Amino acid sequence: MTTSGPISGLLTDLYELTMAAGYFEAGKAEERATFELTVRRLPARRGFALAAGLAQAVEYLTRVRFVEEDLRYLRSLPQFARAAGDFYERLRRFRFTGDLLAVPEGTPVFAGEPVLTVSAPLIEAQIAETYLLATIGFQTMVATKAARVVQAAGERAVVEFGTRRAHSPQAGVLAGRAAYIGGCTGTSNTLTGRLFGIPVFGTAAHSWVLAFPKEAEAFLRLQRLLGEGTTYIVDTYDTLEGVRQAAALGAPLWGVRLDSGDLGALSRQARAILDGAGLTQAKIMATGDLNEYKIRPLVESGAPIDAFGVGTDLVASADAPTLGVVYKLVELESDGTRRYTAKFSKEKYSYPGAKQVFRYPDHDEIACAWERREGAEALIGPVLVRGEPASPLPDATAARARAAAALAALPGECRRLSAPKSRRVEYSPALKALARESRRRMEGGVR
Amino acid sequence: MTTSGPISGLLTDLYELTMAAGYFEAGKAEERATFELTVRRLPARRGFALAAGLAQAVEYLTRVRFVEEDLRYLRSLPQFARAAGDFYERLRRFRFTGDLLAVPEGTPVFAGEPVLTVSAPLIEAQIAETYLLATIGFQTMVATKAARVVQAAGERAVVEFGTRRAHSPQAGVLAGRAAYIGGCTGTSNTLTGRLFGIPVFGTAAHSWVLAFPKEAEAFLRLQRLLGEGTTYIVDTYDTLEGVRQAAALGAPLWGVRLDSGDLGALSRQARAILDGAGLTQAKIMATGDLNEYKIRPLVESGAPIDAFGVGTDLVASADAPTLGVVYKLVELESDGTRRYTAKFSKEKYSYPGAKQVFRYPDHDEIACAWERREGAEALIGPVLVRGEPASPLPDATAARARAAAALAALPGECRRLSAPKSRRVEYSPALKALARESRRRMEGGVR
Repeated sequence: MTTSGPISGLLTDLYELTMAAGYFEAGKAEERATFELTVRRLPARRGFALAAGLAQAVEYLTRVRFVEEDLRYLRSLPQFARAAGDFYERLRRFRFTGDLLAVPEGTPVFAGEPVLTVSAPLIEAQIAETYLLATIGFQTMVATKAARVVQAAGERAVVEFGTRRAHSPQAGVLAGRAAYIGGCTGTSNTLTGRLFGIPVFGTAAHSWVLAFPKEAEAFLRLQRLLGEGTTYIVDTYDTLEGVRQAAALGAPLWGVRLDSGDLGALSRQARAILDGAGLTQAKIMATGDLNEYKIRPLVESGAPIDAFGVGTDLVASADAPTLGVVYKLVELESDGTRRYTAKFSKEKYSYPGAKQVFRYPDHDEIACAWERREGAEALIGPVLVRGEPASPLPDATAARARAAAALAALPGECRRLSAPKSRRVEYSPALKALARESRRRMEGGVR
Repeated sequence: MTTSGPISGLLTDLYELTMAAGYFEAGKAEERATFELTVRRLPARRGFALAAGLAQAVEYLTRVRFVEEDLRYLRSLPQFARAAGDFYERLRRFRFTGDLLAVPEGTPVFAGEPVLTVSAPLIEAQIAETYLLATIGFQTMVATKAARVVQAAGERAVVEFGTRRAHSPQAGVLAGRAAYIGGCTGTSNTLTGRLFGIPVFGTAAHSWVLAFPKEAEAFLRLQRLLGEGTTYIVDTYDTLEGVRQAAALGAPLWGVRLDSGDLGALSRQARAILDGAGLTQAKIMATGDLNEYKIRPLVESGAPIDAFGVGTDLVASADAPTLGVVYKLVELESDGTRRYTAKFSKEKYSYPGAKQVFRYPDHDEIACAWERREGAEALIGPVLVRGEPASPLPDATAARARAAAALAALPGECRRLSAPKSRRVEYSPALKALARESRRRMEGGVR
């Protein structure tokens, strides 16, 4: 994420590697496999999932390697006691040589729609499973959450402030990226800014105020440093007194930040103080354990808040902190014939074969990859071809723009905060036929 | 986390860096500051927090650097337009030269108790805030969750299987470590195994079974590869048929894995099939969206399950997916005098000064750092002294053993799964007096 070196092939579940050894042993490692990554079910409070994380998936697939230390470690494990010596040679020259197809970042997707499709030698596609799920799943979850928070904020800006509460600092870096794609104005994570060209925000914390004997001195020092970007955190001692101290310093300033208390009432009082001092251009930011459910009533009640900083609940997607992403084998070319695979149990029914998703104005259609449609957008396109980039990926800013346009086009019932509904998703006749046929074949022949 | 190179100083909130520039400008950058990291409040479903992540905090503090690319980026930001040129020189030679004190990993802590204390030049202690919060907060959250899951499982093993649903692949690596400290037997994350010497587990997924034309062939191939470690995933087509296929192959095997359906009923039926085939030593593992609330009734009903694999809900701590960790300035040596700082608002009351925590059999006492007590364990000890390790840190295995012993000593009401209670935590008379005095001074003098 932060370096250009190799990404260890060991960053995966052990069973991917034992399966890899087994495929190698069985002569199946180089069979062409197709896996697809989907959101199995949307969480109850989500009417869509906003795809994000593709850039990091590509980064992984182009940089994954097994270094000597990795191989030595595998040799030390009992699970590999029977693995052939050639297996380690295969890992030593491991590169992703397959094709990656995906929906662009910033695309709303629905349950069962492939977010990405990997077609590669079985051993390569299998080992990649864990990393792809985690990086796509996490960024998709945060981008989706961000889209909800941004929607609740209406015209007001939302800045992502959550790294300190992210699930590791590294998750914080990616959360800032995903939140931006979801519509945030920027992030407080400075490395996110540097790595992805995303606007960064932040001025001072309570510790700044505490570090000076007097609040007024702390404020004056901040103004000298930041000028028209100065945002005073006003609640270290007493919020409204803090606003008066800030107002007394006059321009230049950006405004004040309210971090605790009744944000609706305090914002009105702060506005009056600032206006009374002639600082009508000064802005008010609100922070402190915010989320879409707390922002909406503030906005609806007309609280004079210009920007929200949202941290903890955003980066952890606290009301839906897990996303059920899965990665399933759907095709395998074995001994010169193509087999379609799927699960057909009552609990886990899936469709076989590589797919395309067609987006119509009022519904989506999941079809076989070879199908074509007029008047619909085909969402899935090539990203890596034989391991090499098909074309430059859109950056986070382009993904954010795509998301904004696509979300605006979704029906309100998908986007509403409470009890949202998914879009209508249909399966094409050809795909249904393929599923029936595959099921018949599997039920007849697996035992 | 996975390399030995520098960790970018930009992996922090921008306001830490603007404050750093301001401290530098104000001549305060080298003043000795003490910050403490605490859990402000325990989540409703947590009766304790199990401290974890110290090793990664140390890794950060000993490796954080500003490389040229970082400095170039900062120079490009409007927030640093007024920063002195010398500021960048200060960042270029940035090293953590301070002291770190902490409770050992695997120690249960309660609201308000310092998990770690940083005493360092203000600029160093401030910039470290974000990373320390995120790495300690995340691992502490997961270790705590793991302790609950392990407790629910009683004598049965719990293995962490969650990387694919972690909040990024990198979070998955650390989640495996934290879960192990919390009492899990091991992890599926192979890199976690290599980096931290933690046992790794895993055999095969549904895709393995689907990759062969017949389930029996997939099973036979797996047995040849894994021998007595073989665990058959039996629900690809029909769970009990799968168990029969596995039983028909006979020894060697470890057992079967049930991944869907009514795990209580299926485990009994699977047990009967295995026993009927003479495989009384074969074991049964259960997986599939498990957590402590689902495991407890299985265990209480006597379901013949030998091991649980727990993923999604464990690594995301799904029922309490955020932990309110904070990092507060408590002391500052300014112009030769020591000032004690704290927040005294109704909403956020904190205690000033560096602290010690004394653990008695039936309660904890938070005291001033200089206090001594007979008959109580002092939890906080030196980890880094002037930036150098005070002594080798206990490894994850030692932390896990410490946690097991410490958790067993906690009262049942802290450990119960539903509506747990925190331990009784008192503040020493000296600390209370310091708080009163500091409050009086601050209220008199900050404006």
